[in-house]
Amino acid sequence: VSSSAIPTSTDRYTLLAIVEQRDESSLRARLDDLHPADLADVLESLDDSEGRLWLFRLLLPEVASETIREVNEEARNDIVSHLSDARVTAVIEHLDTDDAADLLGDVPEERLAVLLDRASPEVRRDVEDLLAYPADSAGGIMKTEVAAAVQDATVAEVIDYIRRRADEFHDVHNVFIVDDQNRLQGLVPLRMLLLAEDKDQIQKVMEADHHWVSVDVDQEEVARIFKKYDLLSLPVVDALGCLVGRITIDDIVDVISEEATEDILKMAGIGDESLGKGGALAAMRSRIPWLGLNLITSAASATVVSLFEETIRTAAVAAGLMTIVASLGGNSGVQAMTVTVRGLALGEIRGRGVWKLLVREITAACGNGLILGTTAGTFAYFWKGDVALACVLAVSMLANFLTGALLGTLVPLGLRSLKVDPAVASGVFIQTSTDIVGFWVFLGLLSMVL
Amino acid sequence: VSSSAIPTSTDRYTLLAIVEQRDESSLRARLDDLHPADLADVLESLDDSEGRLWLFRLLLPEVASETIREVNEEARNDIVSHLSDARVTAVIEHLDTDDAADLLGDVPEERLAVLLDRASPEVRRDVEDLLAYPADSAGGIMKTEVAAAVQDATVAEVIDYIRRRADEFHDVHNVFIVDDQNRLQGLVPLRMLLLAEDKDQIQKVMEADHHWVSVDVDQEEVARIFKKYDLLSLPVVDALGCLVGRITIDDIVDVISEEATEDILKMAGIGDESLGKGGALAAMRSRIPWLGLNLITSAASATVVSLFEETIRTAAVAAGLMTIVASLGGNSGVQAMTVTVRGLALGEIRGRGVWKLLVREITAACGNGLILGTTAGTFAYFWKGDVALACVLAVSMLANFLTGALLGTLVPLGLRSLKVDPAVASGVFIQTSTDIVGFWVFLGLLSMVL
Repeated sequence: VSSSAIPTSTDRYTLLAIVEQRDESSLRARLDDLHPADLADVLESLDDSEGRLWLFRLLLPEVASETIREVNEEARNDIVSHLSDARVTAVIEHLDTDDAADLLGDVPEERLAVLLDRASPEVRRDVEDLLAYPADSAGGIMKTEVAAAVQDATVAEVIDYIRRRADEFHDVHNVFIVDDQNRLQGLVPLRMLLLAEDKDQIQKVMEADHHWVSVDVDQEEVARIFKKYDLLSLPVVDALGCLVGRITIDDIVDVISEEATEDILKMAGIGDESLGKGGALAAMRSRIPWLGLNLITSAASATVVSLFEETIRTAAVAAGLMTIVASLGGNSGVQAMTVTVRGLALGEIRGRGVWKLLVREITAACGNGLILGTTAGTFAYFWKGDVALACVLAVSMLANFLTGALLGTLVPLGLRSLKVDPAVASGVFIQTSTDIVGFWVFLGLLSMVL
Repeated sequence: VSSSAIPTSTDRYTLLAIVEQRDESSLRARLDDLHPADLADVLESLDDSEGRLWLFRLLLPEVASETIREVNEEARNDIVSHLSDARVTAVIEHLDTDDAADLLGDVPEERLAVLLDRASPEVRRDVEDLLAYPADSAGGIMKTEVAAAVQDATVAEVIDYIRRRADEFHDVHNVFIVDDQNRLQGLVPLRMLLLAEDKDQIQKVMEADHHWVSVDVDQEEVARIFKKYDLLSLPVVDALGCLVGRITIDDIVDVISEEATEDILKMAGIGDESLGKGGALAAMRSRIPWLGLNLITSAASATVVSLFEETIRTAAVAAGLMTIVASLGGNSGVQAMTVTVRGLALGEIRGRGVWKLLVREITAACGNGLILGTTAGTFAYFWKGDVALACVLAVSMLANFLTGALLGTLVPLGLRSLKVDPAVASGVFIQTSTDIVGFWVFLGLLSMVL
């Protein structure tokens, strides 16, 4: 009978307790039933390095490697920094090259040199090659393990080659076909190998019209290609068209999550902060730049308010009402910005879609601005009995809804056309801009009618 | 030579021009080189139904089916609503069952009955079965096309079976092994078929310890299983353990994107709004509930301000300064909320991680509140020369940073423990709560020292 897909949280708590009690025999009794991803879960949940090391040291080398590639950066770096050089090298030898490069990419430079010195020559060469590519490029996420065959081989020869190297190719989806210069010529999905006749030339079976990327393509673009064409793996070539590696869908699934997280954090005005990584100081550092900017822009809006101190002294109720104008304008602006930034990230806004979006957002802002402005104005009238005040509130709310819609759409679109990530048009910017405009329009109009 | 992975935007513009001029011969000359995903791109970019239909009708049935499964909902529903019943039925016959169910799920009920009547009995039965599952459950995203073999077959028999039905299994990764009651017993990756001996019993080759889900598991949970265990496909079983379908990674990639989009929109206070779907009215409708709530909460904060009208008349500068307190508290609260909501969505906050998060966010808020509060107080002192005012500003900023951190973390965590989606703890709520607290603390303290 198959095992259930979802280990219960009871399992996790039991395991945590076992580790905390350093109960080696209970742990060993369970180790065989645990998937490396479940072990990784436990390692992440433990927050003492000692417990993590105790558990990790009880794992067989292959299991240890499978496990360490599944844990998050924080736990991984914690474990690696406490392991002996010999043990780290043993772990690396069992990893795919992309995972080895990920692991070593966070090791301090001096130790990296020592570790690479101890590694086997092939691992050393491959990892050094991979570390030379930017981490967020196709080269940075590919692995160098590829199943490649020359174009004049027969189907039987290719199948034989895969059988002989079965251990290396545990996640192979396609066999890549190259010429004698290692230039990529085509690929053969495993399924086609099953269907083809043994004596066929591989060149006849291969797909010549397939997708590939160059090492320097950005990982976000790579993810878009995988999504668009429903790929499982994608060959990577260098500037000469030579096959240097492949990217697999499991890495792309991580990229898609990461890119979404990055955008979400950026929109909230959070810099380079990995979730679940770093302490309070890291959190402070990643946020204070936007908050500092926020202080400056909100000081600007306070200055705008101070220009109208006379008006506020005359009608102190304005101090409260102006914050309604600012709040609603800001939030509707953030809504427009969110739709724009996410639409751009997913590639859904392009060509004439830009105009459609603008018209849509402006119309929606007018509609909601009219409805909510009128509502707010009506309540203000019944509250204070002042028609002029009510009208000023309604009109300035509408104006600020429009401001929000224009800034929320045009700023990300503008950033995109300047090749800046649109997600940096964060909520902080939209909120404070609509504060300034809202205060200024409301108090300005009010000072005129008073 | 392989084709490049990325069609340039020039290609897309040329194609759009060809469709607009209804230039059939130029289009036919290019059709062979176009991937269905590229055709889908063009269909999405066209905004007139006539152009879309003109292009779509020129496609061969198989290409049309491949293309329609790649287009977004808006374009798909537009095309389907204008096609004849005969053409829609033809398209469906070439689709995988999950894609057919997706397509028919949006068709009005009366037409659905007509279309299913025209479909072949197998398609009809499969699609009716799939439509009965909730769209966001494992049953709702699975396809019924599975490569399944009984456990006493030999490797050679299984390979032969796949060869005979090669057309149906264009994206098969695993052969599922069942008993004579169709109960799932194990699976064999294609790669293992290549490595095994022809006369081996399939039962000896299969993996019995693999992952599976039940039809009623939520798609977000399914995506988490795929991510955690790096799966390509996952068998789906009914309540009796019988194999009813499989979910493939390409559908999961879409789920991951969709779920991220949903969270992003929710946090911005946007309801059920698909990007790129629906006009201004739909956009208004999806946003006005939160904006309406925003009007109520900001009216509450205006009321708080109005309690201190005397203070504001005495020190009109307070009207501007109080907005600084509110703005920074709100934005730092949104930062804490964003980190919490995203961390929960990715499953990175659990067990003792909750305490770690709380301590981290509160510490960071204290730190940034002290730094920015002191800065703001110092500037206020040099501006107005009033020590009391400067101190009130600094203290209330710190208090509001803490409020933001507490609300930003505790509200999503609380919602989660009530089994409500934490992402509904949207920015609107955090912003207006910190407005109220900020105004109240600042004006309250100020009224005491004046």
